[in-house]
Amino acid sequence: MTAPKQFASYVDANAESYIQRLAKAVAIPSVSGDAKYRQHVFDMADFLVNEMRSLGINVHKVDLGKHVLDGEELQLPPAILGSIGNDPKKKTILLYAHYDVQPALLSDGWDHEPFRLTPDPKTGRLYGRGASDDKGPLLGWLNVVEAHVKSNIELPVNLKFCFEGMEESGSDGLDDLIKAESPKGKFFDGVHAVCISDNYWLNDRTPCLTYGLRGISYYKVSVSGPARDLHSGVFGNTVHEPMTDLIHLLGKLVTPTGEIKIPGLANLVAPLTEEERKRYEVIDYSVADVEHSAGARVAISDDKVRVLTGRMREPSLSIHGIEGAFSAPGAKTSVAKTTSKGKFSIRLVPDMTPELVDPIVINYLEGEFAKLNSKNKLKIENLHGGKPWVTDPGHWNYKAAIKATETIYKKTPDLTREGGSIPVTLTFAEALGVNVLLLPMGRGDDGAHSTNEKLDRSNYIEGTKLLGTYLHEVGAISIV
Amino acid sequence: MTAPKQFASYVDANAESYIQRLAKAVAIPSVSGDAKYRQHVFDMADFLVNEMRSLGINVHKVDLGKHVLDGEELQLPPAILGSIGNDPKKKTILLYAHYDVQPALLSDGWDHEPFRLTPDPKTGRLYGRGASDDKGPLLGWLNVVEAHVKSNIELPVNLKFCFEGMEESGSDGLDDLIKAESPKGKFFDGVHAVCISDNYWLNDRTPCLTYGLRGISYYKVSVSGPARDLHSGVFGNTVHEPMTDLIHLLGKLVTPTGEIKIPGLANLVAPLTEEERKRYEVIDYSVADVEHSAGARVAISDDKVRVLTGRMREPSLSIHGIEGAFSAPGAKTSVAKTTSKGKFSIRLVPDMTPELVDPIVINYLEGEFAKLNSKNKLKIENLHGGKPWVTDPGHWNYKAAIKATETIYKKTPDLTREGGSIPVTLTFAEALGVNVLLLPMGRGDDGAHSTNEKLDRSNYIEGTKLLGTYLHEVGAISIV
Repeated sequence: MTAPKQFASYVDANAESYIQRLAKAVAIPSVSGDAKYRQHVFDMADFLVNEMRSLGINVHKVDLGKHVLDGEELQLPPAILGSIGNDPKKKTILLYAHYDVQPALLSDGWDHEPFRLTPDPKTGRLYGRGASDDKGPLLGWLNVVEAHVKSNIELPVNLKFCFEGMEESGSDGLDDLIKAESPKGKFFDGVHAVCISDNYWLNDRTPCLTYGLRGISYYKVSVSGPARDLHSGVFGNTVHEPMTDLIHLLGKLVTPTGEIKIPGLANLVAPLTEEERKRYEVIDYSVADVEHSAGARVAISDDKVRVLTGRMREPSLSIHGIEGAFSAPGAKTSVAKTTSKGKFSIRLVPDMTPELVDPIVINYLEGEFAKLNSKNKLKIENLHGGKPWVTDPGHWNYKAAIKATETIYKKTPDLTREGGSIPVTLTFAEALGVNVLLLPMGRGDDGAHSTNEKLDRSNYIEGTKLLGTYLHEVGAISIV
Repeated sequence: MTAPKQFASYVDANAESYIQRLAKAVAIPSVSGDAKYRQHVFDMADFLVNEMRSLGINVHKVDLGKHVLDGEELQLPPAILGSIGNDPKKKTILLYAHYDVQPALLSDGWDHEPFRLTPDPKTGRLYGRGASDDKGPLLGWLNVVEAHVKSNIELPVNLKFCFEGMEESGSDGLDDLIKAESPKGKFFDGVHAVCISDNYWLNDRTPCLTYGLRGISYYKVSVSGPARDLHSGVFGNTVHEPMTDLIHLLGKLVTPTGEIKIPGLANLVAPLTEEERKRYEVIDYSVADVEHSAGARVAISDDKVRVLTGRMREPSLSIHGIEGAFSAPGAKTSVAKTTSKGKFSIRLVPDMTPELVDPIVINYLEGEFAKLNSKNKLKIENLHGGKPWVTDPGHWNYKAAIKATETIYKKTPDLTREGGSIPVTLTFAEALGVNVLLLPMGRGDDGAHSTNEKLDRSNYIEGTKLLGTYLHEVGAISIV
C-alpha cells in the first residue's frame, strides 16, 4: 500500500507554500552555540508551536532548565513535544528533528546572506543555514500532516513529535527528558518505532537509509603560562610559549592521512569482517563523489572502501581550531595569550565509548606534555561526548522506508552508516527499546555545518512525499 | 651641563596636565592593523598636529599613499614631520615616535576599558593601550617642548620630528619617505643624531639605553584544499584536512624550549664572543625579572645569560595563531575551512636578514609539506620583514643619554640590546648615516602589545625630564 494519490497531488500543488514555510524558518537564526543568538532559538520554537497548532497537532513546550555557555548562565531552548492521532489499532511513530542550527556569518564566505533562503532558479537549490540541517526535514513532517489534514486523508499511523533546539551544541537536557518520558504512562509510552530525518544521502543521486552513526568525544586542551599577553620580541626565546606547547600536542594527534596517533584507540575498534567489507563495495559511491562534495581532489585514498570505511566504521580525529590566539587577518606579533586552547574531536565507532576513550586520550596528552619539559600548565577537558550506534537494517521500520523510497525515487536505497553524530538516536533506542530509522532528506553535497548550505528543491518536495509514503508503508505492515 | 632647574620645576608643576594630554591620546583608538579603526589613526594624527602647532612647532602631514589591508584598499595614515629651531650653531636632533597602537579589546582580558587612560592611585600606574607603546614617549617630547616654550628656556638643540602611524603594521610607506627626505636640501638634511623612545627598561628599577634590535620575518603559511567548510563527521578520515597539515607544519618550527628547528638558520647567527658574554653578565637583570614581567615562572632557562641572549642576540620563533579555523569559545565541530592560515614570525639577529632567511624557511616548509603526502596546496608568504640593527654605544649621542640618566635617575643605565623590532631605526641609520639612540621611557613590565598595558606615572614624568635633560647634554657636547 502506497500513499493515496491525493497526498502527492497536494504536495505538488502546495510546493511554493512549503518553500515559504522553509524560508520563514531559515530567517530565524536559531544558533544554539552562541549566547548572543539564544533568543532566536526561542523564537524558532514559538514559530514551530504555532505552525503545529494550526495543523491540529497537540503540542507543548518542555522547559529543559539552564546551562552555562561562554561563562554565562542561559535558559535552554525548550523541547517541543507533539502528538496527533491516538488510534490503538494504528502504530505510533515518533518523529525527531532539531530546530537549532550551526553558526553562520556572511563573512565566513557565504555567497548569500545565510539567514535568508535564497533559491537558485537554474539549479533548484535553496540556499540558507539550516535548509538541510535540519529545518527542511523538520518542516517536511509538518508538510505531510498539512497534506493529510487539508486533503482529508486519514493519517495511517499515530504520530508523536520530539523537536529539540540544542542538537548542534550537545543536546543539553534532552536525554533526561527522553528517559523521564519513556516509562509506562508517560509521553513516549506506546511508540512502536522512531524515525529521524537529520542526515544526508551519500551522493547527489541515490537515496539511502542509515543504520549506524559514529559517536564523538570533543576535547579542549588548554596550555597556560604567562599571566598576560606577551610581546614576541621582548619574550620570544625567553619564556615557554603556550602556543608552541599546544601546537606540539595537537601535532601528536593524527597523521595527515587520517590515522589517529593515540596508542590504544585502534584496539577498541571492532575488526572489519569480510562480509562487512562487501557491504561497502556495493554502495553507490565513489572517491569522485567525496571529492565532488568537498569541491576538490582531496580524498585521503583512491580506494573506495578505504574512504567509505574511513567515514562510516573507522574513527576520525579532526582539529577544529585554537581559542586564545591571534585569529584575525593581518600580522599581529603578540605571543599567544596567557592560555591557548586547542579544540579537537574524535568520531567514535563500535566498540569505542567516551568512557573508554577519554582516559586514553588524557593520559596520552599528559604524557606527551611531560616530554616537552615546559613550565606551562596543561588542562584537558571533554566538552561533550556520545556513544556510537548501530542497528539492524532488516527491521520492518527499514523495510517500510525501502518500499517508500522505491515508490518515490524508483531506486533501492543504499544502506549506509553515517560519519556524524546524532546522540539522540542512541538515547531513543536505549530508552524506548524500539527500532530507530534514519531517513535522510538532503544530499551529500548540501554543505551541512558549512558555508553555502543548501537543500535541493526536489529533495524538499519529493522528500516530503517520501516521509508521508513511509508512514503509509509503516501503517500497512503487520508486525504481530 | 644639565638642564636648567626651571625645566624640571615646570614638568613637576604641570604633571597633571601632561597626564591629561596622555589621556586624550589614549582615548583615540589608533589601531593601524584593523581596517575598521583606520579613521581613528587619522584622528590621532590631527590631534598631534594641533598639539604641536600650539607649541610653535612647524608641522606638516605627508601623504604616504594607499595600501591593501584585509582585502580592502585603504589610505595610509600620514607621517607627521615637524621642526622647531634652526640655529646653525646648534646640533639638530631628529626625534622619532609612532602614534598608532596594537589592537585591544576589553574582551581580550583587560581589567579596564583599554582606550580610556585609567590611573591606579595606589601604584601610580596609568593603564591604557598605547600608554607606554608609544603615546607616552611621543608626548614626552611635546611635554619637553612645552616646558621650554612656556618657561622661556632656550631649546639647546634644533629639533626635527618624525611621527608615524603604521609602526605596528609594518611601517608601510615610511622607508620611502625617509630615503626621499634624507638627501642634501631635503627635510632630514643636517640631522646630527637620531633619538627614538619606543622601547623599555629590562626590569622595573634600572634605566637602560639600547644599542641593538632584532629584525623580523613574519610569515603566513596557508594550506588549502576543500572548496568549502566540511562537516567533521561526514568528512573526517575521508579527506586531507588543511588544519591537520598546518598543525604538522607549525610543529616543525620551534621546540618548546625555544630552539628553532629550521636547519641552516643557526649558521647565519654571529657567534657569541667571550667579551660579549661578559657584557650580558653585568646587566642588572635576573631570571626572576623575566618571570616577574611574564607574571609566572615560565622562563625558558635558569641561566641569566641564556635568557638574556635568548632575548637580545639570538633569534626566536613565535607562533601567533591561526586564521580560518574555529577560534571562538564553545565546541563547534566543522572541519577547518577551505584554507587554514598559520602566522609565525622569526626575530632576526646579525647576520640574519629577511633576504637570507626567507628562502631557507620557505624551502624547509615546502620540503616538510611534501613529506606529508597531502593533496592539499601550500602557500607561504612573508608578510613583512626587517633587518636587525646594532650600533656603537660609545658614541657622543649615547654619552649624553648616559649623563642625563645619571642626573635624573641617579643610576648608570644598563647598555642593552632589545628583542623587538623597530625597523625604522635601521632605515634612519642607513639613510642619514648618523648615530641612532634608543632611549626608553617605560619599564619592562609595561605589557606593550599585551592586555593591561600601562606606563608608570613616574616613568612618564621623570621620563619627560630625562628626554629634556638628554637634549641639554647633547647641546653641551663638543663634537668637532
